Amino acid sequence: MNKYIIGIDVGGTNVKLGLVNPKGKLIARSRLNTKSYMHRKSKLIDAIAKEAVELINSKSLKKSQILGVGLGLPGFIDPQKGLVRFLPNIPGWRRVPLSSILRRKLNLPVFIDNDVNLVTLAEWKKGAGVGCKNLICLTLGTGVGSGIVIGNRFYRGEDYVAGEIGHIPYLDKTLERYVGNAVLQAKAAKIFRKKNIRLEEVFALASNGNARAIEFWQQAGAHIGFVLAGIVNLLNPKLIIVGGGVSNNFRYLAPAIKKTIRQKSIKVAGASVRIVRAKLGDDAGIFGAYFLVKDAFIDRKSYLKK
Amino acid sequence: MNKYIIGIDVGGTNVKLGLVNPKGKLIARSRLNTKSYMHRKSKLIDAIAKEAVELINSKSLKKSQILGVGLGLPGFIDPQKGLVRFLPNIPGWRRVPLSSILRRKLNLPVFIDNDVNLVTLAEWKKGAGVGCKNLICLTLGTGVGSGIVIGNRFYRGEDYVAGEIGHIPYLDKTLERYVGNAVLQAKAAKIFRKKNIRLEEVFALASNGNARAIEFWQQAGAHIGFVLAGIVNLLNPKLIIVGGGVSNNFRYLAPAIKKTIRQKSIKVAGASVRIVRAKLGDDAGIFGAYFLVKDAFIDRKSYLKK
Repeated sequence: MNKYIIGIDVGGTNVKLGLVNPKGKLIARSRLNTKSYMHRKSKLIDAIAKEAVELINSKSLKKSQILGVGLGLPGFIDPQKGLVRFLPNIPGWRRVPLSSILRRKLNLPVFIDNDVNLVTLAEWKKGAGVGCKNLICLTLGTGVGSGIVIGNRFYRGEDYVAGEIGHIPYLDKTLERYVGNAVLQAKAAKIFRKKNIRLEEVFALASNGNARAIEFWQQAGAHIGFVLAGIVNLLNPKLIIVGGGVSNNFRYLAPAIKKTIRQKSIKVAGASVRIVRAKLGDDAGIFGAYFLVKDAFIDRKSYLKK
Repeated sequence: MNKYIIGIDVGGTNVKLGLVNPKGKLIARSRLNTKSYMHRKSKLIDAIAKEAVELINSKSLKKSQILGVGLGLPGFIDPQKGLVRFLPNIPGWRRVPLSSILRRKLNLPVFIDNDVNLVTLAEWKKGAGVGCKNLICLTLGTGVGSGIVIGNRFYRGEDYVAGEIGHIPYLDKTLERYVGNAVLQAKAAKIFRKKNIRLEEVFALASNGNARAIEFWQQAGAHIGFVLAGIVNLLNPKLIIVGGGVSNNFRYLAPAIKKTIRQKSIKVAGASVRIVRAKLGDDAGIFGAYFLVKDAFIDRKSYLKK
């Protein structure tokens, strides 16, 4: 396959676009400010299409050299139908047939999926999970989500909403209500008596040996570990990858996550599972969209063979 | 395929054997008392082998007419190696290469797996889960376990210990410590002030409108529902099958299970999942062992085709 692929990562703040060459290398990128297009769905779609075309032109490529365009979006997606069902954090996005809209604008094949799924796909194909048949990729940020690879296949669930780990009931609420970004920030603001404290500051405090900061991360890790222990018992994965913004604090989170998993899961499963940090960082979304397109064509081929 | 299969369900109390004809019909059965062979592993294996041969002879069949023998056992099994790693409730079973021992005795192919996995396999292939691609089969008894079908394939986990739902951390303990048979009985004995009360009696009380009995089942259902809601969020299955002895109380458990799942899981996943009672009852283990053998040969065939 000697064609290029465009990978697009739509977030609540930015839209990141990348052009990936036939060897899988990211050779050009650009970025849009999502906020400028809030409440203006069609304008955002137009801007994405325009930016994609400019990316193609920037490398003097022809449309015929592009295999397709992949997009990851933060919300409920039906990848089969190419339908955005609902984006909780970008107003006005409900039941948008995004694949067909963009396909018409770009005259290229378009594939879409949930952003956390695509981060997982990227980490599995070229990040921390390469070669692993059974893994969970946890993303810790404003939302707490996960993607699941089982039996060497990506698993999306009966209605494409599998992996909603942040909404797993935990104590009196849900996991996300304990370790979501905003919740952690509010908790830190209270502990350190500083309104608008950033989690980076709590990380710095922990690095300097501040006992309350270290305990802050330990507690968050224990919450995450409690829920992960249940998942380890249920799915007996080989690997758990921890990604997302909050995972920048992996160094302080990981010991408590690991300890809680070892304590609270069955021996065989708890002893064998590895907990590692995600590898691809900010580019995971773009690469996930790239693999989405690539796999769609590989699958289509094998489908046509039947 | 016009061969017979022997399915064997090894339990802590009984060993149930069944002869299944080429059409998938159970045409003969027999039974051993496990307790008579406690602490005498080799005697139990001998007795199982003898009983299997008698089952073959009872229908005047030749060994060449038998495709293979399948066994389900209550514990940790490595189906690939045919190894019993550990049976918690049958003393002396640790690292027993059961498949090769029985293969030598019977001169027939032998396949083994965890008993809950085989109940799940049977319910999926010919019970409550026929045609379903993504399901969980929960077994409620002395132990609380589950089997998982994902992407139309049976999922066993990285170390073959997936599905240990009873050991999922829940509140201060684990789910099994809230809804396992013995725990429920002890709780009922307290509530109804009757030592050695059986759960059947609590079912009868509920049927007669006893408020405390109805509440007893509602509470158990709420505990189960809480953990299942998390699994629904994680795996977005189409179906949850409830089996095992305690599921005889499905009528009183189900409303609370369903209500809790709807309340505590994300809308799409909670609304779409169906909760049903297992269909195959006591024969599920035998049929699961039958499908284990059948599938092993089908898989081998498709493997040889490659």
